[in-house]
Amino acid sequence: MPTISRITTDIKKFPLEAGDGTDSIHTDPVYSYIVTNLHTESSICGTGIVFTLGAGNREIRSLIEGLVQPLVGCDVEELMSEFGARFKQLAEHPRYRWLGPHKGMIHLALASITNACYDLWAKTRGVPLWKLLIDLTPEQIVDTLDLSYLEDELTREDAIQLLKENLAGREESSGIIEKGYPGYDTSIGWISYSDEQVKDNVRRAVDAGFDAMKLKVGSPETERDIRRAYMVREAAGVEARVMLDANQSWSLPKAIRTSKALASMSPFWIEEPTQPDDVIGHQTLAREIAPIGIALGEHVSNRVMFKNFMQAKAVDFVQVDCTRVGGVSEFIAVSLLARKYNLPVVPHVGDMGQIHQHLVLFNHISLGHDALFLEHIPHLSKYFLHPALVEDGIYKTPQEPGSSSDFV
Amino acid sequence: MPTISRITTDIKKFPLEAGDGTDSIHTDPVYSYIVTNLHTESSICGTGIVFTLGAGNREIRSLIEGLVQPLVGCDVEELMSEFGARFKQLAEHPRYRWLGPHKGMIHLALASITNACYDLWAKTRGVPLWKLLIDLTPEQIVDTLDLSYLEDELTREDAIQLLKENLAGREESSGIIEKGYPGYDTSIGWISYSDEQVKDNVRRAVDAGFDAMKLKVGSPETERDIRRAYMVREAAGVEARVMLDANQSWSLPKAIRTSKALASMSPFWIEEPTQPDDVIGHQTLAREIAPIGIALGEHVSNRVMFKNFMQAKAVDFVQVDCTRVGGVSEFIAVSLLARKYNLPVVPHVGDMGQIHQHLVLFNHISLGHDALFLEHIPHLSKYFLHPALVEDGIYKTPQEPGSSSDFV
Repeated sequence: MPTISRITTDIKKFPLEAGDGTDSIHTDPVYSYIVTNLHTESSICGTGIVFTLGAGNREIRSLIEGLVQPLVGCDVEELMSEFGARFKQLAEHPRYRWLGPHKGMIHLALASITNACYDLWAKTRGVPLWKLLIDLTPEQIVDTLDLSYLEDELTREDAIQLLKENLAGREESSGIIEKGYPGYDTSIGWISYSDEQVKDNVRRAVDAGFDAMKLKVGSPETERDIRRAYMVREAAGVEARVMLDANQSWSLPKAIRTSKALASMSPFWIEEPTQPDDVIGHQTLAREIAPIGIALGEHVSNRVMFKNFMQAKAVDFVQVDCTRVGGVSEFIAVSLLARKYNLPVVPHVGDMGQIHQHLVLFNHISLGHDALFLEHIPHLSKYFLHPALVEDGIYKTPQEPGSSSDFV
Repeated sequence: MPTISRITTDIKKFPLEAGDGTDSIHTDPVYSYIVTNLHTESSICGTGIVFTLGAGNREIRSLIEGLVQPLVGCDVEELMSEFGARFKQLAEHPRYRWLGPHKGMIHLALASITNACYDLWAKTRGVPLWKLLIDLTPEQIVDTLDLSYLEDELTREDAIQLLKENLAGREESSGIIEKGYPGYDTSIGWISYSDEQVKDNVRRAVDAGFDAMKLKVGSPETERDIRRAYMVREAAGVEARVMLDANQSWSLPKAIRTSKALASMSPFWIEEPTQPDDVIGHQTLAREIAPIGIALGEHVSNRVMFKNFMQAKAVDFVQVDCTRVGGVSEFIAVSLLARKYNLPVVPHVGDMGQIHQHLVLFNHISLGHDALFLEHIPHLSKYFLHPALVEDGIYKTPQEPGSSSDFV
């Protein structure tokens, strides 16, 4: 029985090419990971990652080291068989909790730890994370989740029922493993790319098999946003799905005005129009700009905030990210909530899609979510040991044991 | 013209007597402050504090040091004359912002910095913070605020108008300076105190002139909560205002049940019934338990969340804390919002009331808020250079220059 014998942490920083990763708010990113490594005597090592833009790395590492010690000595199967209780214990730590609760840096630290636990679990079983997850029974899945503070919407019994109802249709959807999961290209139009660059990138994306892509908006001059949005529409064609991402840069009144001005280029969604805590603001916006949908989640901290967005009908595409909420466990809790609300889960990929390529397969097969598409950001491919493989716009199903989170 | 020449940081930790400060969630607190010191050539030093329960101190200190450097060389009056823009610049830092935004540890770091700026401003003018604030014009006050993401509820013009409308009645309310501001006793019933201790404390509080006090609830056994609530009511008398504080320990269904069971002892409010991000949950609860009011804010991170709670009618007593939101500046922004919604501001005092004794005077005199009462926690009195003076249940108006944030 593999046991966690030793825990180490690490920081990985990857400078980007000029302009890559820039948006209306994040003008100077240094893509970074704070890594938790759970070592076993048998030399199997679980790796968990959480993402930043280059600030706060040392501090998050220090938080992980403060929080993770109770896992030393844990038997992996025992730990994961009741991971929900363990997650709750870590999230409700009587002193660390003050720093959130359930949000900001202390929650990022928890995410790194949680993701390492799932990676280790899959590696010790010798299977990819998606395979481990789809083979769990409904009860086993729910035992890995902390559903507290969701009692008004999703009890343990509700969650098990929801999983069981989906069991019948599973054979059909399992073809996804062979086909792979569709991707979309998020890198055609970072905010500081020139018009020429964007047009080139659209052509390249279409040639590479993508029929869905995302443009950054939220420029100081709205005319620039509008011009570029129509430019992308023209270059990509009327059939392509084009998403527009404002990265929270608009006030609510400006979000309403600008979204309406962009409506006739038929955006597939408007992403992060305004401040990500503003449930009521997004509710108002959703009513104003329907049928254009709102996508958000990149900066939504936890399952309670997601519950609020869903209850308020303030979100149409749930972009929960397992490197923002408390890791894989809370990602699944949010995905269950979204299933109840019949909302698609389209993760933001702080992990560059490495872990999420597993999770969207689970969401499709075990929860019955549509296989819409998964964001693809190629900039860090060369740094991962098993980089996500995207061909003809399709994520090929990963076959290596674990969650594909190891670096070279 | 005083200029910030050098910046230092510090950590202060104050262990408590057994049982002090314990509640249903925070069972083992070590009251701590992470301190920002803004030094000038003239040996005047601005002190800003932010509060934790003992974990995360080093990490917050490190965040402050990463964020604060642009203030070196700033002229104090220039800095403060447009502090709103500076606050926004710090809060929207293109890399640090990822860690929130506007929440958790990065926001606590900002609060410590902001509070130091206000303390320095008052000290260089040689006046207590309350005096500095009430002497500002409406325009000058609003120039210290970042009202972005509030445009749907409180524009710059709205805020100035609101302040101007209150100017007429100011003479009348200024008697508060001589009388002092009422306090309430929050320390009669920490969760791990015995029944005998609680009863003794109630008697002592009444003898000390308090007619308002708070009991911790949220015990594992609800019967204990109910028994102790009625016990306090009996000991304090029917006239006393008794507040019940669950510190987020209930699920929404349990909050509804338990609040209803406690209704007949006439609590003045129910505080932090459930998870503090749950706007819709508190909205439901507010409807269910009316006319009992809900108090919250201790863990509400920023002005956008407060806006949501107010819009949703999910809060009755606004417990904004300048050591939780981004310091004095955001405290004032939230107080303006609350004034618009006609909701009382009754701060949670992570600062032990040291800064808030200034801010509630400002809220009463300049914003026209009722002088309801201010939480009083005596445990750290001896550590402050100018501890808040509470006599006959009344906060005496502080006279020393600054925000009363210096330690001995």
